[in-house]
Amino acid sequence: MRSTVNRQWLYARKPDAAVGPEHFELRQGIVPEPKAGEVLVRATLLSLDPASRAWMQAVTYRSMLAPGDVMAGWGVGEVVESHAEGFVPGDLVSGELGWQEFAALPASELAKHDKSLPPEHILGVLGVTGLTAYFGMLDVGRPRPGETVLVSGAAGAVGSIAGQIARIAGCRVIGTTRGAEKCAWLTNELAFDAAVDYQGVDVYRRLKAASPSGIDVYFDNTGGEVLAAALARLNLFGRVVCCGNVSQYDTGTPAPGPAGVPGFLVTKRIRMEGFIVMDFYGRRAQAEAALAAWLAEGKLKAPVDVVAGFDKLPAALASMFAGKNRGKLMVRV
Amino acid sequence: MRSTVNRQWLYARKPDAAVGPEHFELRQGIVPEPKAGEVLVRATLLSLDPASRAWMQAVTYRSMLAPGDVMAGWGVGEVVESHAEGFVPGDLVSGELGWQEFAALPASELAKHDKSLPPEHILGVLGVTGLTAYFGMLDVGRPRPGETVLVSGAAGAVGSIAGQIARIAGCRVIGTTRGAEKCAWLTNELAFDAAVDYQGVDVYRRLKAASPSGIDVYFDNTGGEVLAAALARLNLFGRVVCCGNVSQYDTGTPAPGPAGVPGFLVTKRIRMEGFIVMDFYGRRAQAEAALAAWLAEGKLKAPVDVVAGFDKLPAALASMFAGKNRGKLMVRV
Repeated sequence: MRSTVNRQWLYARKPDAAVGPEHFELRQGIVPEPKAGEVLVRATLLSLDPASRAWMQAVTYRSMLAPGDVMAGWGVGEVVESHAEGFVPGDLVSGELGWQEFAALPASELAKHDKSLPPEHILGVLGVTGLTAYFGMLDVGRPRPGETVLVSGAAGAVGSIAGQIARIAGCRVIGTTRGAEKCAWLTNELAFDAAVDYQGVDVYRRLKAASPSGIDVYFDNTGGEVLAAALARLNLFGRVVCCGNVSQYDTGTPAPGPAGVPGFLVTKRIRMEGFIVMDFYGRRAQAEAALAAWLAEGKLKAPVDVVAGFDKLPAALASMFAGKNRGKLMVRV
Repeated sequence: MRSTVNRQWLYARKPDAAVGPEHFELRQGIVPEPKAGEVLVRATLLSLDPASRAWMQAVTYRSMLAPGDVMAGWGVGEVVESHAEGFVPGDLVSGELGWQEFAALPASELAKHDKSLPPEHILGVLGVTGLTAYFGMLDVGRPRPGETVLVSGAAGAVGSIAGQIARIAGCRVIGTTRGAEKCAWLTNELAFDAAVDYQGVDVYRRLKAASPSGIDVYFDNTGGEVLAAALARLNLFGRVVCCGNVSQYDTGTPAPGPAGVPGFLVTKRIRMEGFIVMDFYGRRAQAEAALAAWLAEGKLKAPVDVVAGFDKLPAALASMFAGKNRGKLMVRV
């Protein structure tokens, strides 16, 4: 007989500033009964993403979370019961499971995967994270061989993949991150050409030293000071890929916009463009194939940071905003 | 014997805030001798452009003006002496003549025009102004029939043409300008669908009332508060054409950037893109032909505001930043 208890982390209250465990509550819920067309999934690996914090704060590309909701998030799991065609117990699936041990979801909202795939890859390099890096860098940023590409949040899930894709595309790649240790990791482990520690008084000066030929593409995960400095360093016809604004998610006092907008955009003919990975899902097979090939050839590394224990979810989310993770952060249930 | 005196307005000192006649000095210069390959031009009509103010303040797409330089600006004139093939006395030409009665310029920097063309059109709707509106709206903004297009500085030279081009493209067009009288002029005279007076406490609220279906393309001549409000009203996949930042040119204390950048760009997949008309000069014949056809068919009006007298140049420039002109502002020499 399977468990009837379904542990769930509820989003309990809106953070005034930095998110922490106090904003969540653990509930002993009940394992849901899947309806016709639905599949019951037992979560095995849950994804932590900067966007989670934005969902608590405002309407984004999805509706805002309300206190009392099961905390939202992507995950990988095993089918335990299926009332939908095409799914049988034991199948490896992914979808928006939420922060809970069991989820009943319509089959249309689940993707089925080959059981030989590492679950870390499904949430990471071959999932939303990798697709975001792939389409953002190549379709929105359009780097050309020999150009200089800057990636902020470069030690994070998307940034670590995006920077490597730019390197594979023949570019000189600079990453920003927090602290000397993570800078060294970017250049030594992921073969970035340069890394800039954004903490400190003058990120523009450091960025200038690291980009003697200016910057052609800036893949922006963070907004904030790095965005302002990047706009000042961008070359004519530079491009800014607006992927995230993580410097502004975990705060109650958002900064004003970068002073270089719109002035630098006009004088330097810069294109700034936002995107959401779902807009590119029609071409996801192409991206997955390319990413898998680069992994197999050893050109691309897929760093992951896996925390053990369902009870660790809130603390893991907070640690991400404290800049602790290297690569994709996940919690093993 | 022709005059040997060449009156020139020199850019004398950098404004701390609003530009005025005190920042210029009139010099009785000497008519230059054209060298080999050069053409001597007598100015007849000089163009006043918001960008002139930016040239005083900073390096833009051109080098910054230095005190003592002849004030820069485009103009139309008549060839009085030619040491270059292809030009003869009496030819109608345009180029960057500067604020002076006579200029000697390399033939390569001059364009020759059919003498049947009204000189106002050469500087306005069939010149840099009209080309800026054409390429900015159609190539950068890419409006589709039925979309809502917002133009700021809509009573100005570029804005008045850009808005009409969007109307011709089948869009609903809203313009922002200063004061009820200019608002009425936009809707009555130029057939804008709506006009919003940006002066007052809540431009966002007024803009919202004027754009019940949101905004798809924002042609931004001004930056500042209208840009911030437009970003909040933009629809998914909205586009911002960054043409100018005139709200920030005539001030010593530039505002911070719009708070919606980069947040709205990500969540609404917005593209913001700057351009300079020179980048499109390879296709200028196509644009001139389209603009001339719309003029001939009566679909497009080319409003001009012509001030008489070379001595009026500095005051005319100041009046533009006070929002006095309707359409393209010029001074007849």
